[in-house]
Parts: sequence; structure tokens; C-alpha cells
Amino acid sequence: MRGVVIHAPGDIRVQDREDPRILEPTDAVIQLAATCICGSDLWPYRGIEEVSSAAPMGHEYVGTVTEIGADVRTLKPGDFVVGSFWASDNTCEICRAGYQSRCVQAYPMGAIGTQAQFARIPLADGTLVATPGQPDAGLLPSLMAASDVLGTGWFGAVAAQAGPGKTVAVVGDGAVGLLAVLAARQLGAERVIAMSRHPKRQEMARRFGATDIVAERGDDGVAVIKDMTNGLGAHSVVEAVGTQESMMQAVRSTRPGGHMGFVGVSHDVALPGLELFFAEINMLGGPAPVRRFLPELIELIWNRSIDPGQVFDLTLPLEDAAEGYRAMDERRAVKVLLTP
Amino acid sequence: MRGVVIHAPGDIRVQDREDPRILEPTDAVIQLAATCICGSDLWPYRGIEEVSSAAPMGHEYVGTVTEIGADVRTLKPGDFVVGSFWASDNTCEICRAGYQSRCVQAYPMGAIGTQAQFARIPLADGTLVATPGQPDAGLLPSLMAASDVLGTGWFGAVAAQAGPGKTVAVVGDGAVGLLAVLAARQLGAERVIAMSRHPKRQEMARRFGATDIVAERGDDGVAVIKDMTNGLGAHSVVEAVGTQESMMQAVRSTRPGGHMGFVGVSHDVALPGLELFFAEINMLGGPAPVRRFLPELIELIWNRSIDPGQVFDLTLPLEDAAEGYRAMDERRAVKVLLTP
Repeated sequence: MRGVVIHAPGDIRVQDREDPRILEPTDAVIQLAATCICGSDLWPYRGIEEVSSAAPMGHEYVGTVTEIGADVRTLKPGDFVVGSFWASDNTCEICRAGYQSRCVQAYPMGAIGTQAQFARIPLADGTLVATPGQPDAGLLPSLMAASDVLGTGWFGAVAAQAGPGKTVAVVGDGAVGLLAVLAARQLGAERVIAMSRHPKRQEMARRFGATDIVAERGDDGVAVIKDMTNGLGAHSVVEAVGTQESMMQAVRSTRPGGHMGFVGVSHDVALPGLELFFAEINMLGGPAPVRRFLPELIELIWNRSIDPGQVFDLTLPLEDAAEGYRAMDERRAVKVLLTP
Repeated sequence: MRGVVIHAPGDIRVQDREDPRILEPTDAVIQLAATCICGSDLWPYRGIEEVSSAAPMGHEYVGTVTEIGADVRTLKPGDFVVGSFWASDNTCEICRAGYQSRCVQAYPMGAIGTQAQFARIPLADGTLVATPGQPDAGLLPSLMAASDVLGTGWFGAVAAQAGPGKTVAVVGDGAVGLLAVLAARQLGAERVIAMSRHPKRQEMARRFGATDIVAERGDDGVAVIKDMTNGLGAHSVVEAVGTQESMMQAVRSTRPGGHMGFVGVSHDVALPGLELFFAEINMLGGPAPVRRFLPELIELIWNRSIDPGQVFDLTLPLEDAAEGYRAMDERRAVKVLLTP
């Protein structure tokens, strides 16, 4: 099969890779209907994360089951499925508490590389959720989004306890931040403030339900949020970047007793203990347990209640993956869908 | 009146101070029935916090109202009252959400110095809670504890979501940690693990309801907690020290999706972002909003349901405050009660 491999920062190639096969009786193999490029794929692309040897890329996926292991009970070949970027058994104590991304058997799909024509999915019964039927082509981008960016934005909004009566601020205007805006509105938030300087992303944030846009960043952005909230700060803040500046912007934008959900993968972040102590905010973050939300998200997409697939503003054939990485790196595209 | 003043690290003096009087119409003045020395008073005593000039000490207090300002509505001279170490209006949006220690008008009682015979209490209606009647002398230590250490340990246990079915670990065996043990049990926790190497404190932890004692510290302590919890970590962890080591011990002892409440005042703590991200735990900490819990705590004490006053293992006249500081500094006493 064909698949995307990174050889060095900036060096993305589409090449022949070994066809995946069942390794464990709990595995399934799927044929991808779509895959995509994640903001987090840009860290190694930009050399901020080390690339020590050639490695397959991609951890988001939707597609059709082609083969199942002997122990797979809930799926059959032909099922159309969506899964999370962490494989999980969905039965351990951590999964049952709703934290499937930290399952005792958690397996990172990035190690498999789903920017490819086929992929092995470990722990298939726990990881994959079948759609109610075969989706129309028009639903593919939104189902694709559910695999990571929608689920991650949703977790950020849930962790920030977005809900009725709440003012929610979102730090970060990438696909995850934009979908945190959508999530906050779906969860009933009264006011949703998107922090973005980028006109096209501001417009998308408004389409997803942002009531306000704040272009200022850092402590200037914090000051605007305080001005908008009677000096107190937002009830709920979602952090979707992962830098020191964005984390502190999020901490400082949250009112005492408020909730901050942080879903941007941390890079060189150190949180000052004393400031965190006196901030007195509830914090929850980490790799999103997307599996917790998938049944609900698939239903909302299937019913056309939400259209998160709009974040894909560029679609390319898998063979042109390198151009997709360039477009995202240069911020010409919010998120790139790849068709295998 | 007589009151405690710190002149330099290690230099505690009891001296004449000006009698407090009503400055604002929302003030009350109380005559202290008891006051005490806090673990946090040891930071300047040890020179870890700077002592730039002579300063009054103490922020915990119980006593009798002697005078009220013109706007005080809910209290009258003669009432016996307990208050928190933060004065708060108890009416602002932050107070109503239960975070009175971060009230928009919050005033730190440490700036007033309650290791004295009398004290001015700002925002008296919001800050003070009257007991159902005049307390027996035997209740004074427990009511005194409610003013800070019990309320702080209680907040730590609530922030850690201690409750039925939960395994709770407490890092720190000072008065706050010991009372977090009591709180966790009262809140219905199934298993309460006190982390302590000190035989006398271990014994007190058991009296307060600890089911297990772990003497190991740091990552050795974490390993023991993991062993006791099927490799997962505790559901709930209370941090009651405030150092880098104790914070990381608490983070690492909490299972993914679990809750950590941190109430030790942070000193030179920096939390690594990436580790926090992958820990995926709920965190809440800060100066305890003791006022939220005071009505409930006073009732539990009044009914003799709890006896937190046991943490006071040394009682001295106010005039001997310097000896009280020495005893706590040398860990000869858990907590010292001072009688004015």
C-alpha cells in the first residue's frame, strides 16, 4: 500500500509501505476512506520534535473494516467505522471512568501511521465505533473530524465545563480551537469568545457559534477578556495551542473557581506553582479521550446537527501529502483532508 | 493590647500593639478566645519568605464580638464567632460560586495579625459565622481549627473529590494534611492513605480515620501508592506541603481522570507542562475558601461529630508565642494553640 513517511523535518514522502495485517486476535484492519494532517504533525515537520529515523505519519482515520481478528465481537468486514487516535480496550477501570486515552492498554495510533491506504487498529472492539450505515461522501469530512480535532475540541470544552450561562474563551484558532468553539455552543454556553487574529479563522469561528472575537494575545488578550467579564475572567477557558504563552493566557483568563481545559500538546511549558495556587482554577487537560464522545458526536453528525468538516479547507490526494503539510505549515490551510 | 510581631527570621516578640478599632462601617472588632500558629507562619520564621520589616503575625481566630460598625447587620456584641483567614463579602459572584478566598474584596487576615488579644475583622457580615451559643472551653480548639487548618484540609479533600468508593492519598502530615485525612473520611472515602514518616503523626492520622500509612516519600511513595491501587494511582490526592517534591509526588500518585487538591502554599514550584498533560488529572488548589465550609464544620464540631482540635498538641499563653514557634519549627508540636 501507499503511505506517508517523514524522513527528516520538512521531508515528507508518500511511498510503498507493507500492507497491514492482523497481529493480535483483537485487531481489525480497515481501508481508509479518508485521513488527514493534524496540527501536532507539524511539530516533527518543523523539527521542534526530533525525527530520529524515518517514521510513518498520521493518527486520524475513518474507513471500512476489511478484516477482523478471531476475538473481535462487535464489528464485521464492511462496517464503516470511526476511531480515536488512541486505541483503547474501553473496559478497564480508567476507560470506564471516561479516560480512554489513558487506558491501561492505550496504544498510540501515530505509531501505526494512518496517512495510508490501510491501517491495523488494535483493540478494535474498544477503539472503533461503527456508523449507523454507509455514510454519504458529504459526511466524510465531519466523521473524519470526529476522530481527533472535533473530539479534542469537545473534550476541551467539557473539561472547561462549558454550559448554559457560561462565558467560554478559546485560546487558539487551529482546527481544535475552532471546534472547541462549536462544542461550547453545542454544550449550551451563553457567550463564546474566540481568540484569533486571522480573518478567515475568525469567520469560521463565527460560523461555529463564536459570539465574540478577541484579536489580542498574551496579557493584552487577558485584559480584554477581563474587561468583557466584569473584571473576573471567563467561567471556562479552552487552551488549544500548547505553548507557555498560550497556557499562561488561558490560566490568567479564567476566573477564580472557573475551569480551564487544556488540549494543546505542551511544548516547553513550565507552570509557576505560586501563580497557579493563587489563580485557584480547576484544570484538566491531556490527550482527549475521544472514544468517550464518539457515539454522541457521530449521532450529531449523522443527523446533520453539526458540520465540523468545514475545518477541512483543503482536500488533496494522499499522493500529494507533502503539499498538504506545506499548506498547513504556512497557515494557508486550517486542516487538510487526504483521500487515499 | 498584646500581640505577636516578627522582627526578623527567628525573632518573634510579644509586645504592645495599638488596640484595633472600627475603620469601615462593615468592620467588627473581636476579643480573641484563642489564636494559633500556622505552618505557613514558619516560612518567614525560617527566612524562606523575606521579613522586610517588623510585622504582626497570625491569621486564625475565634472570639467574641466587642464592637460592630454601623453597617453590620447579622452580628451583635457578645456573639461568639469563627472566621476564615481571608475576609470576604460573601455576596460577590466569586463568593457565591464558593470561592470566598478569592472574593473581589478579599482581605488577608495575616495583614491584621490575629496572634493578639483583639482583632479588627473587615467585611464582618460576610466573614464571620456565629456559633449556636457560647462554646464550652473544650470546644475551643476544634472551633479554632475550623478557622484555617480544618477548613483547608476539608477544601483539599473536596477539591480531590474524596467520597464514597474512593481511595484518597494525603501528601503531608502537618495539621492540614492530618485534617484532610479526617475530611476524606467524613466525606465517605473508602480508603484513606496518610503519607507520613513520623510515628506520632501516623498515630494521629489513624485516629482521624487513615486506613493505611505510607512512610515512603517522592517517587518511592508514588510506587507504593500505585502498588496499593492496582497500578493505577489513587482516585483522589490531597497535597498539603507546597514543595516541588510534594507536588510531583501528588501529581504522580493520582490516576488518570482522578482529582488532586493542592493546598500547601507553593514555594519554588514549577510544574512541567508535558508531564501534567499526560498525567491527565483534574487539579484544583489555592487558598481554601474556608468560609464556604464554616457553617457545616461548626455544626459537626458543635454536635461532637468531629474533634479536629486534637491537632493542637501544645497550648501556651500568648506571651510564650516565641516558644510555640520554636516547638513547631523543630516539629516538637504539630500545632500550637495560644491563649490571649
